[in-house]
Amino acid sequence: MSKPVRIGVIGAGSATFSLGLVKDIILTKGLAGSEIVWMDINADRLDGISRLAQRYAEEMGADLRFAKTLDREEALRDSDFVISTADAKGHHHARRMRDITARHGYYYGGIDIGSFYNLRLMLDIAHDMERICPDAWLIQSGNPVYEGCTLMNRETNAKIIGLCHGHYGVHEICRVLGLEISRVTWQAPGLNHQIWLNHFLYDGEPAYPILDEWIATQGEEYWRTHQAERTHDIQMSRGTIAQYHLYGLMPIGDTPRGNSWWMHTDIESKKRWFGEPFGGPDTEIARPFYVANLDQRLAEVARIAADPKASVAAFIGTDRTKEQQVPIIDALTNNIGGFFQVNMPNRGVVAGIPDDVVSEMSAWIDATGIHPLRPTPLPKKIMLEQTWPKIIEMERELEAFKTGDRSMLLFNALTSPQTHSYEQAVTVLDELLAMEGHEEMAAHFAGPSAADSPALRVEAREAARAAQAVGDDK
Amino acid sequence: MSKPVRIGVIGAGSATFSLGLVKDIILTKGLAGSEIVWMDINADRLDGISRLAQRYAEEMGADLRFAKTLDREEALRDSDFVISTADAKGHHHARRMRDITARHGYYYGGIDIGSFYNLRLMLDIAHDMERICPDAWLIQSGNPVYEGCTLMNRETNAKIIGLCHGHYGVHEICRVLGLEISRVTWQAPGLNHQIWLNHFLYDGEPAYPILDEWIATQGEEYWRTHQAERTHDIQMSRGTIAQYHLYGLMPIGDTPRGNSWWMHTDIESKKRWFGEPFGGPDTEIARPFYVANLDQRLAEVARIAADPKASVAAFIGTDRTKEQQVPIIDALTNNIGGFFQVNMPNRGVVAGIPDDVVSEMSAWIDATGIHPLRPTPLPKKIMLEQTWPKIIEMERELEAFKTGDRSMLLFNALTSPQTHSYEQAVTVLDELLAMEGHEEMAAHFAGPSAADSPALRVEAREAARAAQAVGDDK
Repeated sequence: MSKPVRIGVIGAGSATFSLGLVKDIILTKGLAGSEIVWMDINADRLDGISRLAQRYAEEMGADLRFAKTLDREEALRDSDFVISTADAKGHHHARRMRDITARHGYYYGGIDIGSFYNLRLMLDIAHDMERICPDAWLIQSGNPVYEGCTLMNRETNAKIIGLCHGHYGVHEICRVLGLEISRVTWQAPGLNHQIWLNHFLYDGEPAYPILDEWIATQGEEYWRTHQAERTHDIQMSRGTIAQYHLYGLMPIGDTPRGNSWWMHTDIESKKRWFGEPFGGPDTEIARPFYVANLDQRLAEVARIAADPKASVAAFIGTDRTKEQQVPIIDALTNNIGGFFQVNMPNRGVVAGIPDDVVSEMSAWIDATGIHPLRPTPLPKKIMLEQTWPKIIEMERELEAFKTGDRSMLLFNALTSPQTHSYEQAVTVLDELLAMEGHEEMAAHFAGPSAADSPALRVEAREAARAAQAVGDDK
Repeated sequence: MSKPVRIGVIGAGSATFSLGLVKDIILTKGLAGSEIVWMDINADRLDGISRLAQRYAEEMGADLRFAKTLDREEALRDSDFVISTADAKGHHHARRMRDITARHGYYYGGIDIGSFYNLRLMLDIAHDMERICPDAWLIQSGNPVYEGCTLMNRETNAKIIGLCHGHYGVHEICRVLGLEISRVTWQAPGLNHQIWLNHFLYDGEPAYPILDEWIATQGEEYWRTHQAERTHDIQMSRGTIAQYHLYGLMPIGDTPRGNSWWMHTDIESKKRWFGEPFGGPDTEIARPFYVANLDQRLAEVARIAADPKASVAAFIGTDRTKEQQVPIIDALTNNIGGFFQVNMPNRGVVAGIPDDVVSEMSAWIDATGIHPLRPTPLPKKIMLEQTWPKIIEMERELEAFKTGDRSMLLFNALTSPQTHSYEQAVTVLDELLAMEGHEEMAAHFAGPSAADSPALRVEAREAARAAQAVGDDK
């Protein structure tokens, strides 16, 4: 017997994700009869996904209902689950920001001014859920999972699970080592985008020796010859293994992307550490390739949506995705228990992480709830060099977000290893806040400014002169 | 009635400090009849201070006894108080280190490889005290107070008070503002070298408005015209006031020296922020001046020691010093209560600092013990941008010290804002560890090294080549 649920999807215009969700629900018997409410702010994409989902369900003969709305509250009303993949700004905006930082001497981003728009959106959604559907689970599936889930958990009583793809790096390790994932026992706890493989068994026996053997006998050959087909294929790269050797545990998924700044200073370093041809996902080679693939996918979706005779099933396939959203909904709804990788308030799970910081962990989920596994503590070196600095960065971002203190954004810019002078940080921050699309952010981060302090005022004038000089050089 | 005590002085060769100590004891009636045991590893300096102290006491007609020893254990035996000012390496060693880092592109030091020799010495002393004089107080008066006192408190049961001069910056503020220090109520808690004036009253009324008025009406004039006579005269500098404006509280004493790296990148920045002629204490102009003054002082001491007819009192004076050691001994021994600025395990005093981290605080001291005042919490911005990063740095230094993990020294070198490449950090660290006088440190920090990892090994070869190339350029 099935227990139909109502699922609101915020940011439904992501066709691959949304159609994958439909597929997974169709393949989950216990959720037959469920209703999905698509919500997006882009009416065209909303129409497209709505029609494709309907056709796909019909092709599959599935018992599913759909609704669509431009109104977020409508997507929340009576929902049992809310899945948010919304990104307030998107790829093209991020690219314009990178263009600006590049003009100020930063390589591929280089400084972090936080996620004002996404944090505000996430907080709005969680507040709405408190009011409209307080018993529903929010399955937060868009970034920044770590900062955003911590913020939402602190500021609201919404029930929140954060999800990310990074932990699938364990599958990549197994693929390269020739291990069947079903025979692997593993945990990779930490913070989102900062997780470490601290339990790793194969058929119940230690599996790190298998990895060490591969490194010793095949590592150099792999690093010399491997050509990545996906931009994110860095799990077995020289840089990742170097971090393993420094810390004693494998960094998983996105972890090596945010560590060890000296691996990320330029395209040569990127390629040396993360391989050919992309140098990892965060390069001027990788990103256009990645975005072009997304755009191509969108074009295919549009083509199929426009052709009523095209088979949606042929396009999207009929195998389960690797996504966790639907299995988690099934576990909570129908008691189909399973282990999942989730982001939740730490509350004693990963030793040394404060209770109210959202950490990433393994959890057993069934109809009785979400039951985190408390792993062996992470090595102190990881805590001190990686985890704690990321906790403080997050706290600074949330404090800046709450207070609108512009000087905290400046402080963060100044702490970038790529910032070499005060003037560089001041001018790049000013330009980023002045760019199109950042009007509300600039208004939010209004003070204190240099102009409020006679001690700083001179500096501000000098910064302006320095900016002028930079402009004159061109 | 007096209660004579026995005081062991480790590192007694510092004549100014040691003779000041004698003077303060002479001026403290309750300590008449006490014995001071001078201990130093330099026999000549030990003899000099020993004879001068004896002559000074005789000139003053004081009831004091003296002993001297090259054996540390002898200085501890039966002591009620142990004062350590020992510095395992000294100014000239520090200068040789700065010469090396300068060759690798760092300005005035630039990277921190920790205080291996001083930490080991402090730990040895505290362990000896546990065994030899477990009821004595160690008054730790040499750096690194913060890291060393935290280490000793965690690893031993010795009774420890850490002292520093930084808080006298409050006197400097009052002097410039024309306030009588006796009418000022203040507290400046935090971490040693990282303290903030969070209570500041004059005649019981808020005193920050007096400072603000001075900044508004006289700041620019002061910054334009003030010529420092002491290298450490930066309390009212533009840089310090700029930090006040960013954080809302005045950073006191050494605090502005370790903050805001962009104020410290070169001599022009130093002078702009910390004034003429020195640019603060940490410049190539200030340090030779400071060390020359010390050397001149040592020469005077030697001259007076060699001239039995010279008056020691005429040289050292007869007024109390500003030092806290003797008043604290008097408070604990004779119940002459007073407020002091001490470094002790935080245990709930400064909100947000872990219990087992040594923080700096005001404390009332009398014969019943040391009673910290719990101040108003520091602003969250200070905790997130200043205090917590310093806590993690300290934890990394202590973890590296305990484990001998060389890669943690490298990590710290890599986090310096002045480090611009991996090769730069690797080569400067290698050269620092290979320098004369660092043999035991190099042996202690043996692994893990790049040679243990095939992923890192290539990098090590490249670093060697880069070092070669740097050498070739000269």
